[in-house]
Amino acid sequence: VTRPILFLSDYGLDDEFVGVCHAVIARIAPEVPIIDLAHGIPPQDVLAGGLTLAAATPHAPPDAVYLAVVDPHVGTERRPVALEAGSALLVGPDNGLLPPACDALGGPRDAVAIEAEKVARAPVSPTFHGRDVFAPAAAHLAMGTGLHDLGVPIDPSSLTRLSRLEPDVGPGRVAARVIGVDRFGNVRLAAREADLERAGLTGRLTVSAGGLAAPAHRVRTFAEVPDAAYGLLVDSAGWAAVVRNLGNAAHDLGARRGGWVELRADGVG
Amino acid sequence: VTRPILFLSDYGLDDEFVGVCHAVIARIAPEVPIIDLAHGIPPQDVLAGGLTLAAATPHAPPDAVYLAVVDPHVGTERRPVALEAGSALLVGPDNGLLPPACDALGGPRDAVAIEAEKVARAPVSPTFHGRDVFAPAAAHLAMGTGLHDLGVPIDPSSLTRLSRLEPDVGPGRVAARVIGVDRFGNVRLAAREADLERAGLTGRLTVSAGGLAAPAHRVRTFAEVPDAAYGLLVDSAGWAAVVRNLGNAAHDLGARRGGWVELRADGVG
Amino acid sequence: VTRPILFLSDYGLDDEFVGVCHAVIARIAPEVPIIDLAHGIPPQDVLAGGLTLAAATPHAPPDAVYLAVVDPHVGTERRPVALEAGSALLVGPDNGLLPPACDALGGPRDAVAIEAEKVARAPVSPTFHGRDVFAPAAAHLAMGTGLHDLGVPIDPSSLTRLSRLEPDVGPGRVAARVIGVDRFGNVRLAAREADLERAGLTGRLTVSAGGLAAPAHRVRTFAEVPDAAYGLLVDSAGWAAVVRNLGNAAHDLGARRGGWVELRADGVG
Repeated sequence: VTRPILFLSDYGLDDEFVGVCHAVIARIAPEVPIIDLAHGIPPQDVLAGGLTLAAATPHAPPDAVYLAVVDPHVGTERRPVALEAGSALLVGPDNGLLPPACDALGGPRDAVAIEAEKVARAPVSPTFHGRDVFAPAAAHLAMGTGLHDLGVPIDPSSLTRLSRLEPDVGPGRVAARVIGVDRFGNVRLAAREADLERAGLTGRLTVSAGGLAAPAHRVRTFAEVPDAAYGLLVDSAGWAAVVRNLGNAAHDLGARRGGWVELRADGVG
Repeated sequence: VTRPILFLSDYGLDDEFVGVCHAVIARIAPEVPIIDLAHGIPPQDVLAGGLTLAAATPHAPPDAVYLAVVDPHVGTERRPVALEAGSALLVGPDNGLLPPACDALGGPRDAVAIEAEKVARAPVSPTFHGRDVFAPAAAHLAMGTGLHDLGVPIDPSSLTRLSRLEPDVGPGRVAARVIGVDRFGNVRLAAREADLERAGLTGRLTVSAGGLAAPAHRVRTFAEVPDAAYGLLVDSAGWAAVVRNLGNAAHDLGARRGGWVELRADGVG
Repeated sequence: VTRPILFLSDYGLDDEFVGVCHAVIARIAPEVPIIDLAHGIPPQDVLAGGLTLAAATPHAPPDAVYLAVVDPHVGTERRPVALEAGSALLVGPDNGLLPPACDALGGPRDAVAIEAEKVARAPVSPTFHGRDVFAPAAAHLAMGTGLHDLGVPIDPSSLTRLSRLEPDVGPGRVAARVIGVDRFGNVRLAAREADLERAGLTGRLTVSAGGLAAPAHRVRTFAEVPDAAYGLLVDSAGWAAVVRNLGNAAHDLGARRGGWVELRADGVG
């Protein structure tokens, strides 16, 4: 019995990188379905990749093999790893990319450092471990190969973890980093519904980014935002997001990934 | 026996929206193939999505489940619907997106308003019915669930329909809206071959858009266009299109989606 | 027994062209898997498409049907062809696109000019042979139809071939054309490892493009490049490439596809 592969990367779809990984998997595991979760992770943004992967876990087949590649230090000493969490398996670089999904799946139960010679067909390119190490490792796991056949056991507590981006929360105020902007211009913030509740951001508010400030309303969905105003909602992955109905909030506010957005309840402070 | 799913949306491929819908479908219907028709529909452009879906019907498997999501009013009172037309099924919002394809397939024979609680696994996000309502509904239909198991019957004649974009046709003249620009810069117009015939646009003509006017020739294919001129052809979906061989007609003419282009036979008017 | 299809084109993924070809294949060969190698080949760049296809051959299933469409002269006299090479089959226009992959697979053993009426379901659009000729031809081959059932035999030596882009190599110096820029800004050059060895480019060097010159180091992988410098490496497809760690070499150097880049060893000339 085989497992589906859920594939995430920062390779984009303009080049052949994703397609070549698909070819490698098809050669090893021709019957295994590949679900392309996302390949437009901003280049080398390990944190964004990790959060996107974690947010997908409730929706994915429980026995999936997660193949994740955002790998700015490819070819150096960072370890290629394979993990078991819940009934899922995960493959990728040991740079902080996998732990958020791993935790969402119940935490790592077992881990190995992949030995490239156990999965690679030919000399390993120092710049494309997605093709030569991670994709074949995921294909073998999807076909039923055991985790320990891929490499040597490591302590799951030794995995690299990125620090979380915590929002700054006070009465009537939340300041949070922008973790992503989607194609509709929605600005996703590193804050959850509980942060908005704690700050009491429930009605009218002011949203600030860069030098701009604009009125906004707490809403449930895009269509509730009044014309020419902004909305603050909890998006489908559970993040606070600043949106504009039939407009582009990120562009209009000048908000960019990595920058700060401040939300302040009207009549406070 | 299962049906393939043909999936169209305005989600783009930079974000994880399409991939998460694939994961949801794989969880319910792991054996069902998904054909990604197009996800680059301009954001919230229901008309463009509907025309693209309709144009694909002659080429798709006759028993396909069409899953279409261009949904600017997600989370409001607009109904989620599932339809039967010919031997196909269609799922999407009731906002005008489905009727053009439905008509191309022979017209709606049966229709239901989907009840979210019959298909959703968990609380439904008010902003992502693609993931929580439409994708699971399509997956269940692809697995053989009956239309009437998804919700309550509705009158097919009550479906929302968008008005068609009619060209303005006279002797030696067609003016039409731009319904799309593709990656090659070809400018697709809301006019059909019959409109060009009626106006007598068969040889040399002048094409105007914005303040620009340029000579053009009626041709069958890109390579017939003389250097430095424009061509007018009937494209592969049956629309009139202004093209430039080895050039970008949209850019060079300043033509944009939603704008008007005028075609005038030389020596007339 | 069926074969997988490996699909490459310059159609991009914004429009429905790739999706409609998938639909056509699913109608003829519903069980055949399609591997999307790349659809972001620069529009009408036959050479780039041919090199990308050839570089994928070592990684693809040996019995694949290669479906490749970069076709600026669609609808004219250029022949649609199907080829046999090694244990693979290839389908596409006879414009130079297929021979590099064909050679990498062992050279063409057999060839036919496809007769459209043997594969098309309906009148063939003069502008979209991908949908009406090449995709159905590939689908039939993947289902086991013989090469000679698709058309008339032709002499493999009559296939159109593009001239190779040769670098200019001297002591301490390589000048080469830019054959591509990827999403990370890496600049791929029409030069191989052997060219760099022949010129003796092994240590510090100067890279020039446009009016700019900058220091660079020969490296194996991105992370070895010192801050604020450039790196020269052999990429995963065997091409020389100019890179910048955590930066965008193409943008910073002003290098563009089709332009020249010069590499000169420091202390020479």
